[in-house]
Amino acid sequence: MRKTSESLKNLGHIVYKENYTGGNAGLFMKVKRVIYSEQTPFQRIDIFEHPDFGRVFALDGITMCTESDEFMYHEMLVHVPLFTHPEPKKVLIIGGGDGGSLREVLKHGTVEKAVLCEIDPNVIEASKKYLKMTATDFDNPKTKIVNENGADFVKKYSDYFDVIIIDSTDPTAGEGGHLFTREFYKDCYKALKTDGLLSAETEDPFYDKGWVAIAFNRISSAFPISRMYTGFMTTYPSGMWTYSLGSKKYDPIKDFNPERVKEIQSRLRYYNSEIHKASFSLPQFLKELIHHV
Amino acid sequence: MRKTSESLKNLGHIVYKENYTGGNAGLFMKVKRVIYSEQTPFQRIDIFEHPDFGRVFALDGITMCTESDEFMYHEMLVHVPLFTHPEPKKVLIIGGGDGGSLREVLKHGTVEKAVLCEIDPNVIEASKKYLKMTATDFDNPKTKIVNENGADFVKKYSDYFDVIIIDSTDPTAGEGGHLFTREFYKDCYKALKTDGLLSAETEDPFYDKGWVAIAFNRISSAFPISRMYTGFMTTYPSGMWTYSLGSKKYDPIKDFNPERVKEIQSRLRYYNSEIHKASFSLPQFLKELIHHV
Repeated sequence: MRKTSESLKNLGHIVYKENYTGGNAGLFMKVKRVIYSEQTPFQRIDIFEHPDFGRVFALDGITMCTESDEFMYHEMLVHVPLFTHPEPKKVLIIGGGDGGSLREVLKHGTVEKAVLCEIDPNVIEASKKYLKMTATDFDNPKTKIVNENGADFVKKYSDYFDVIIIDSTDPTAGEGGHLFTREFYKDCYKALKTDGLLSAETEDPFYDKGWVAIAFNRISSAFPISRMYTGFMTTYPSGMWTYSLGSKKYDPIKDFNPERVKEIQSRLRYYNSEIHKASFSLPQFLKELIHHV
Repeated sequence: MRKTSESLKNLGHIVYKENYTGGNAGLFMKVKRVIYSEQTPFQRIDIFEHPDFGRVFALDGITMCTESDEFMYHEMLVHVPLFTHPEPKKVLIIGGGDGGSLREVLKHGTVEKAVLCEIDPNVIEASKKYLKMTATDFDNPKTKIVNENGADFVKKYSDYFDVIIIDSTDPTAGEGGHLFTREFYKDCYKALKTDGLLSAETEDPFYDKGWVAIAFNRISSAFPISRMYTGFMTTYPSGMWTYSLGSKKYDPIKDFNPERVKEIQSRLRYYNSEIHKASFSLPQFLKELIHHV
C-alpha cells in the first residue's frame, strides 16, 4: 500500500516524491515549475513540469501520468480490450479524467460513442488547460462527459456497452476504492452487452500484491472469461503494471485479429499485435499470486 | 545517463538514493541498517538492509540487486540463453560478483564448468559474507572464480565456451564501460564455440535509451543472430530492463525446447517457457529504437 506524498507546496516546489510501501521507498522527481496544485472536494490535484518527463499529473500524491510515458499505460489499458472485441461501438471509460484513455478509444474507427465518467470536474478542467497531451478529445462529437461516481453511474445501464475501461486511481486513494468492489464489477457485467468485455488497471505485484490478487479474483468471479496481462509503465511503482480483462464471450488470445491493428499501428508507440499476445504471458510468481498455475 | 548517489555515510545512514537522468528523478530507499560500505580500488560497494526489500547491494550508488527482486533479473539474464542452447556445458559469467547469475547457471544439469570472472575480489568477499541469497555457489566444484578484467580475460579463449553471460554494471559506471565495446563483443564471439551464444544486460530504454541502442547494435554487428528481449526488474531504473542475445547458430524462438524447462521450473520464480517466448515481443517504441521495424 502506498501513502500519499507531502503537498508540493510544503516542499517548496522543489521535489515531488511518490511514496511506495508506506514511505520506505519511492520515486522522486525534481519539479521545474508547479503548474497547478489544488485540493478539490474529492482529492488533491497536482500538475507540474519535470525537466525530462514534461508535464506530470498526480492525484493525492500518486502519479497518474507523465507526458513522457503515459502512452504505455493508456495504450495497454485501451487497445487490448478494443482489439479483443471485433466491433466496439459504445465504450464507457470510468475515471480517466486526463483524457488519455479517451484519446486511445477514439483511434478505433468502429467507436460511435465514448462516455467518460469522471467523478471530479476539476480534473477535466485542469486537464483541458494543462495536459494538452492527453486532453485531445473532450470536444470530439463522439464524446460524452459525465461527472458522477462511476460505481453509481454504471448501475443505470443494462446490456448497453460493448467495452468498459476502468481507468481508476489506486484502491487506497480517495474515490478509487469504489472501483475495486465485487458489486461494481457485477454492475459492469450487467451494463455490458451479451458479448461485452472490460479492462481494468489492477496495480503492481511488487508493492501492492494484495490488491493485484483481490482485483483479479473479483473480476474472475464476475465474468466467464478472465485474463491478467502486464505492461511496462516506467514512472508507476515498480514499472510493472497489471491489467485485468473480464469478458462475456471473446477470448483475448483466440478471438484476437491482428489484421485490424494495422489500421492504426502508425499512431501507436507501445502496443502492437505481438505485444497484445505476449502481455498475457505472466512471470511465474504472478501466475502463482493469482492462482493461475 | 545516471549519476551516482551520494555516499551512504554522508547521508547519515538514513536514505539511499539512486539518481536517474542526472538526478532529476530517482528511487529512494530507507536504510534500516548499513551492513558494509567500502571504497575498493575499483568502485564503492554498499550493502544495507531495507525494511521491505531485505539486503540491498549497490556499486557506485547504482543498485545491483535487492533480496526481494534479484530473481527477476538473474533468471532472465541466464535462462533465456541457457534454454536457447540445447546443451550448455561450459559457461562464462563476466561480472556478476554477487553470485546470482552463477546460482541460476548451476541449476542447469548440463553445465560442467562455470567460470565467474569478477574484476573486484572485494565484491566476492562481501557477497560471501553479506549476500547469502545470491552467494550460494562460489564453493560449488563446478565453479571457477577469477578476478580479472573481463574484457582482457575473454581474449585468452578461442572456440571454448558454450554460453557467455555478461552481467555488468552500467556502461557509465566504473569498470562497466569495457563490457560494452565493439572489440569486447568480437572477443566474446571468438571465445565461443561454433554454436555458442551470449546474453548481456543492456540497460533500460526510458532513462538510458542511447546505451540500449548502442549495445544492441554492437552485438548485432558481431553475431549472425541477434535479438533483444525484455523483463520486469522492479528496483532498476524504470522497471523495464533489456537484455540482448547474440548467437552463432541457435535462434532463441525457433530452437527453443520448452520441455527442458520443466526439469527446473519448480526452482524458478520469474522465468517460464511462455515468458521465454513473450520476452522477445518488444513494445513499438523499443523496436523503433533498435531499428527492428
